[in-house]
Amino acid sequence: MSKTEQLAQGLEKLKINGMYKNDFYWTWDKTDDELAAVFAVADALRDLRERNISTRIFDSGLGISIFRDNSTRTRFSFASACNLLGLEVSDLDEKKSQIAHGETVRETANMVSFMADVIGIRDDMFIEEGHKYQKTFMDALDEGYEKGILEQRPTLVNLQCDVDHPTQSMADLLHVIHQFGGVENLKGKKVAMTWAYSPSYGKPLSVPQGIIGLFTRFGMDVTLAHPEGYEVMPESEDVARKNAAASGGAFRKVNSMEEAFRGADIVYPKSWAPFKAMEKRTRLYREGDKAGIDRLEQELLAQNAQHKDWSCTEEMMKLTREGRALYMHCLPADITGLSCQEGEVDNSVFDRYIQPLYKEASFKPYIIAAMIFLSKVKDPVGALRALERAGGRRKAF
Amino acid sequence: MSKTEQLAQGLEKLKINGMYKNDFYWTWDKTDDELAAVFAVADALRDLRERNISTRIFDSGLGISIFRDNSTRTRFSFASACNLLGLEVSDLDEKKSQIAHGETVRETANMVSFMADVIGIRDDMFIEEGHKYQKTFMDALDEGYEKGILEQRPTLVNLQCDVDHPTQSMADLLHVIHQFGGVENLKGKKVAMTWAYSPSYGKPLSVPQGIIGLFTRFGMDVTLAHPEGYEVMPESEDVARKNAAASGGAFRKVNSMEEAFRGADIVYPKSWAPFKAMEKRTRLYREGDKAGIDRLEQELLAQNAQHKDWSCTEEMMKLTREGRALYMHCLPADITGLSCQEGEVDNSVFDRYIQPLYKEASFKPYIIAAMIFLSKVKDPVGALRALERAGGRRKAF
Amino acid sequence: MSKTEQLAQGLEKLKINGMYKNDFYWTWDKTDDELAAVFAVADALRDLRERNISTRIFDSGLGISIFRDNSTRTRFSFASACNLLGLEVSDLDEKKSQIAHGETVRETANMVSFMADVIGIRDDMFIEEGHKYQKTFMDALDEGYEKGILEQRPTLVNLQCDVDHPTQSMADLLHVIHQFGGVENLKGKKVAMTWAYSPSYGKPLSVPQGIIGLFTRFGMDVTLAHPEGYEVMPESEDVARKNAAASGGAFRKVNSMEEAFRGADIVYPKSWAPFKAMEKRTRLYREGDKAGIDRLEQELLAQNAQHKDWSCTEEMMKLTREGRALYMHCLPADITGLSCQEGEVDNSVFDRYIQPLYKEASFKPYIIAAMIFLSKVKDPVGALRALERAGGRRKAF
Repeated sequence: MSKTEQLAQGLEKLKINGMYKNDFYWTWDKTDDELAAVFAVADALRDLRERNISTRIFDSGLGISIFRDNSTRTRFSFASACNLLGLEVSDLDEKKSQIAHGETVRETANMVSFMADVIGIRDDMFIEEGHKYQKTFMDALDEGYEKGILEQRPTLVNLQCDVDHPTQSMADLLHVIHQFGGVENLKGKKVAMTWAYSPSYGKPLSVPQGIIGLFTRFGMDVTLAHPEGYEVMPESEDVARKNAAASGGAFRKVNSMEEAFRGADIVYPKSWAPFKAMEKRTRLYREGDKAGIDRLEQELLAQNAQHKDWSCTEEMMKLTREGRALYMHCLPADITGLSCQEGEVDNSVFDRYIQPLYKEASFKPYIIAAMIFLSKVKDPVGALRALERAGGRRKAF
Repeated sequence: MSKTEQLAQGLEKLKINGMYKNDFYWTWDKTDDELAAVFAVADALRDLRERNISTRIFDSGLGISIFRDNSTRTRFSFASACNLLGLEVSDLDEKKSQIAHGETVRETANMVSFMADVIGIRDDMFIEEGHKYQKTFMDALDEGYEKGILEQRPTLVNLQCDVDHPTQSMADLLHVIHQFGGVENLKGKKVAMTWAYSPSYGKPLSVPQGIIGLFTRFGMDVTLAHPEGYEVMPESEDVARKNAAASGGAFRKVNSMEEAFRGADIVYPKSWAPFKAMEKRTRLYREGDKAGIDRLEQELLAQNAQHKDWSCTEEMMKLTREGRALYMHCLPADITGLSCQEGEVDNSVFDRYIQPLYKEASFKPYIIAAMIFLSKVKDPVGALRALERAGGRRKAF
Repeated sequence: MSKTEQLAQGLEKLKINGMYKNDFYWTWDKTDDELAAVFAVADALRDLRERNISTRIFDSGLGISIFRDNSTRTRFSFASACNLLGLEVSDLDEKKSQIAHGETVRETANMVSFMADVIGIRDDMFIEEGHKYQKTFMDALDEGYEKGILEQRPTLVNLQCDVDHPTQSMADLLHVIHQFGGVENLKGKKVAMTWAYSPSYGKPLSVPQGIIGLFTRFGMDVTLAHPEGYEVMPESEDVARKNAAASGGAFRKVNSMEEAFRGADIVYPKSWAPFKAMEKRTRLYREGDKAGIDRLEQELLAQNAQHKDWSCTEEMMKLTREGRALYMHCLPADITGLSCQEGEVDNSVFDRYIQPLYKEASFKPYIIAAMIFLSKVKDPVGALRALERAGGRRKAF
């Protein structure tokens, strides 16, 4: 039996009717079955592609991407996922558009969606803004569809907002599943999601929030570690706490990197900005207080600099289980002695984990493709089987 | 009988041999039959897509877009149209090219066209320049094709020039046809194409020129209204006058928004810049007279500000037929109290017409696709029937 | 027998097993058979396309382009080639990416390649850097593939580096083959690859280096002419010398444009920067010596200005064989009296050769497509025959 057929049989047992024609904002909106379905379809699409079997379910159609922040891997992951399914990416570059003229989100949303099947949005820069933008955008499409303006209602893939980064956390988790030989082996595994020092400022919180919100669902023992003052969004901690309780895992917070690393099976050391400071920054931007923004930046850089010892050094790695925890990062990392003088991780540690790190990133295109597949295909099990049976070649010769 | 078959039967009766391998510059270059063919094919392509039937007539091929001015909806309409037919869009971004090195239009045109099937150009910023650029570009392709440099001669879709904006006016008219239940119901309908106040400056004239040049062909009673000094290109008024005479409609000019609105079935209030001022601006740019350009901008903004009463208010709307004229706009509009303090239209008016306004915009991708289809397909009737019969699915599952 | 079948029969006799899954850096890495294969496949793909037969060998897949310098014709050639074979281009725009964060080439290379079939890179600005970047990039992909990060290893098409510009020189040579009625007619033909004056500064050396490295392989009598001080990379002269010896051709250097032109069958007058000066420039950039860079620019412009007599004038053309040598250029040229006051070529000469010049450029998309085809298709002869037999239509109607 092929891997795809195995996965299809697993998929058949899941209750996932709610995914069809639905959006993907946050992992905690989704049921366990729905997350399992994303993993299954991602693995199946990968299996088919690796066997040179076409997974093109669209003959034509557009995937619209909106990047309100720079991106390499998510941009290419989205492009790859769309292409794999037969959609062409059309990027809404706000610099080349008339949006500056004061166009409403409602209008933009409808104007780009007449032939769009999927919308991918990254908007992670401002606390309280990113998710709101995505929601406003998709509500406008609901309205457009209901009023007969749009013949179909494109579905959303959240490519990172201020709250969650689901394509990242799901790719991360699928990587963990493969590394640990199956989702059933995750129970009790110790995860250290910890802050780490970076010479740069204002990194989004959606990765740590996404990780604690997702990893706690699989019975893992998740520790969130950061210096005092680097709290994440309180709501995301609540999600983590609730998930841990429901899954038989654990969630706790500490203010010591050492404590989090001790005995950890997985470490995810990564810089982020304090939630409160990001709230303040959003306020300053709203008020147009340029001097205040500059002052805040200086304060935050100074605050960061007090915590240079929060770094994933060789010594720190020795504290982990058998000194061999799985090191994870969403990339790019600030690597001490390579991309900066002092950063999140020692070059020797980073370099030793290059293979699993890049492998981790390799799941993202398939996770995105699976999210699209499950929102656009009514009978995903049947579709996977039909694709395998048809056996169209991706590369003909 | 399917809608597509009905439309194909209508199409069969039209004389449209001249469209094959031909360009689309201005609507007034085209016969009535040719315009009717664009509408029929646009509706048929929409019908097929809505029934999930593939209209992909190209297995590969490029649509080249050149935007010499910002664009959202036309950019996405062109991308959607190309994708619908199987062409991939390749955008000529003059900032990323070597054009700055002094390359001639003749050279650029040939260099990007070796595998191009269609060229879409927006060049609307400068009076006397936009159309000239398109013409020079396409003449170069004629030469390239005749000399055996190009194996095929791509066809042009004018995505807006200084004279006409045919993809806009055709989408607008198809919207009107649908709103009024058929082209046969347009005779005698009163249309108010009127200037409206905007706090911004230098908006193109191609929309009003395109509307009066096209709507007068269908027996409608078209009024062009603007404050003194806001004249459009005289040639486009001549076109409107001639068309009105031929179609049994009417064309007149007034200097009062009220007069135009009174009893109107359709109102199209929109800002534009005075033709004479735009001629002057082009001259100043040619001479590189930066101070003169700045002075002209100040003069024009001051001139605009004298006509803030030219706004599509609720009071103004009450003057129209039963107070319920169809409100139209090419978007984005300057909306009083939403995108600006005082603008072209009251927010309450605009908001009430959101559905028809967005619907109006939804025709543009299909209009562009129809223009491409008719210039690339020798037997459009046969092709539509073959596509419907083949019934290839756009989305497979 | 079709042209494609003829070409397939020729291809069958060539030893080209080494091309499958291989990169294309420099023409001198390739055997004579391998170059002949590129020409044969390029001509066959063109023949099929001209007969409206689909050459789409990919159902989905990405071609990644990286332009570290501006480009029009190479950009569109790459886009055309990818599209012809069924690949979608995804451009890595370093301004929109997180590369500025200090990401390593190794990381970027892997991150964009998860679903990439081909990578096209232009990096021609800095001596000692361009090729190194390409090599580092592709080595990273080797590593990624070996470590199981990438399921397939994309292949490289060098779209211009500091050493060679193979898609240009190969397109140029295929043009020459067609102009002279076959590769067998090239023996003994006199080629003048000469420097020419340009008012701009710092043009890459890869074109002259590529031309002398390639044209000497076909028994031609190649002269490299430039003013003293405008030497090219010594290694590329060694290549030319060796090739000429092996092919029964000749290679010599002179410091007189007249001497090179006298009796020439082909002239290629083109500006470039002195190799030594470019080495110095790279050093200055590495040291961040802005003042030094500015000074060097002034020196080079002054040096250029001493050689304004190195121009392809009508008088100069009269020196060539029967005054009718084939004039070549990679375009865009600096044309005296058209794009600049004094430049590489008289407008009247350039204009007389417009047709062959544009024809020359028209080979580039096919050359690139052939390079991709030969690196991705295991049995190119079988594949060409299968494509012709299948007879899928590129444009359906």
